Amino acid sequence: MKRNIKLILEYDGTNYHGWQSQVGSGSPTIQDTLEQALNSLTGEVTKTYASGRTDAGVHALGHVANFMTESTIPSRAWAPAINHFLPDDIKVLISEEVPLDFHARYSALGKCYTYRILNRSAPSALYRNHAWHVNVRLNMKSMRLAAASLIGEHDFSAFRGAGCTARTPVRTIQSVVLRNKGAFVEIVMEADAFLRHMARNITGTLVEVGLGRFRVDEVKRILESRNRAFAGRTAPSQGLFLVKVYYSD
Amino acid sequence: MKRNIKLILEYDGTNYHGWQSQVGSGSPTIQDTLEQALNSLTGEVTKTYASGRTDAGVHALGHVANFMTESTIPSRAWAPAINHFLPDDIKVLISEEVPLDFHARYSALGKCYTYRILNRSAPSALYRNHAWHVNVRLNMKSMRLAAASLIGEHDFSAFRGAGCTARTPVRTIQSVVLRNKGAFVEIVMEADAFLRHMARNITGTLVEVGLGRFRVDEVKRILESRNRAFAGRTAPSQGLFLVKVYYSD
Repeated sequence: MKRNIKLILEYDGTNYHGWQSQVGSGSPTIQDTLEQALNSLTGEVTKTYASGRTDAGVHALGHVANFMTESTIPSRAWAPAINHFLPDDIKVLISEEVPLDFHARYSALGKCYTYRILNRSAPSALYRNHAWHVNVRLNMKSMRLAAASLIGEHDFSAFRGAGCTARTPVRTIQSVVLRNKGAFVEIVMEADAFLRHMARNITGTLVEVGLGRFRVDEVKRILESRNRAFAGRTAPSQGLFLVKVYYSD
Repeated sequence: MKRNIKLILEYDGTNYHGWQSQVGSGSPTIQDTLEQALNSLTGEVTKTYASGRTDAGVHALGHVANFMTESTIPSRAWAPAINHFLPDDIKVLISEEVPLDFHARYSALGKCYTYRILNRSAPSALYRNHAWHVNVRLNMKSMRLAAASLIGEHDFSAFRGAGCTARTPVRTIQSVVLRNKGAFVEIVMEADAFLRHMARNITGTLVEVGLGRFRVDEVKRILESRNRAFAGRTAPSQGLFLVKVYYSD
């Protein structure tokens, strides 16, 4: 009997070429690695469906994927069983059986990403692959004000990376929260969905504001321009974490 | 003119065989790597003195080392200059010139270590090298009560690793604080100095209490026994962080 299994995954993206399988790419992807583990576990050739792609070097605390199987492995037992075949830098946190019409991407209602910036003069040995080192003091107040102008439903073309395959550039941002944690600045972003590089382009633009290179009110005008050339640079991938994907359950 | 330079270092111990240079060891050590960087920078053959050794796999947020030099590099400029020659997983945070009689080890008044435990059922991809995964719920209340019996001046022979070269097993613990941070349990330990494996053996013993394998009052008796055989196992090195070394300044 066909069953649909949903997985919540944590991974360290440092050594992977992002989530999605790529034809002819040399580096392994998270998806390939997961599908190989599933094949080793069940003997089935399995195709997984993910809540979205993540770029090379981006991490996840709660990426979601699902797949169809004929296997009778119990719902909760998939997580430890798959982990046995996965490398240390990819782990399944939770497994559960879901209705056959559940699709990790199409059923998703929203997502939360956190971008982590290390804001101090010295670089970090421990966070070298898990934060963006910005060595000039950021003005948090300006960044918060600028972030406020992004909330709501907008055409986010100005923050859309080249090669984005989304049908529409309109997205709804629920919140952009900036918080200090010791020497770190964290930018927590929630939206119904994100365009390609959108979280990293928003971060890059807010950092320009924090450095005083963009004025606070310029962010609203960048958004309204719908022109990628006006926004800030793309923040590096290693600071970005997919934290959670929301579903109606 | 001879100068004494003090460095505060952060490092990810994952890929190193601890701090101290070892004759005939295959893996690199932090000390060797630092001394090679100093040699590349100044041309001098430099011997560094550290606040203490750290075991293979142990990390540091604030390890302290000092060295003598004839170089005229300004006090604060050492940090970025040395970092240029160091790998990404070792970084100098702060450099300063100190009196010639300063010695990172003999001048130290105390140290703070933090041990990080990930206390949840699923293993972690992101923290695999930076926490100990304990997959059974720990009883924090029991651990806190047991930790209290270690505070003060005691003979810590029961928590002393084999091969420890300290002249006396008597140490003074100022505090052992246990705190929850999401799914993590952190044990923050301050003492005048630590015997070999002492922080890891205390952690291993407190975890036995947290798992209900040792009763709370047994920890006091283990301490009084001065017998290593009675204490818990040595907690794995990857959860331990040397946070700070205290000096009189």
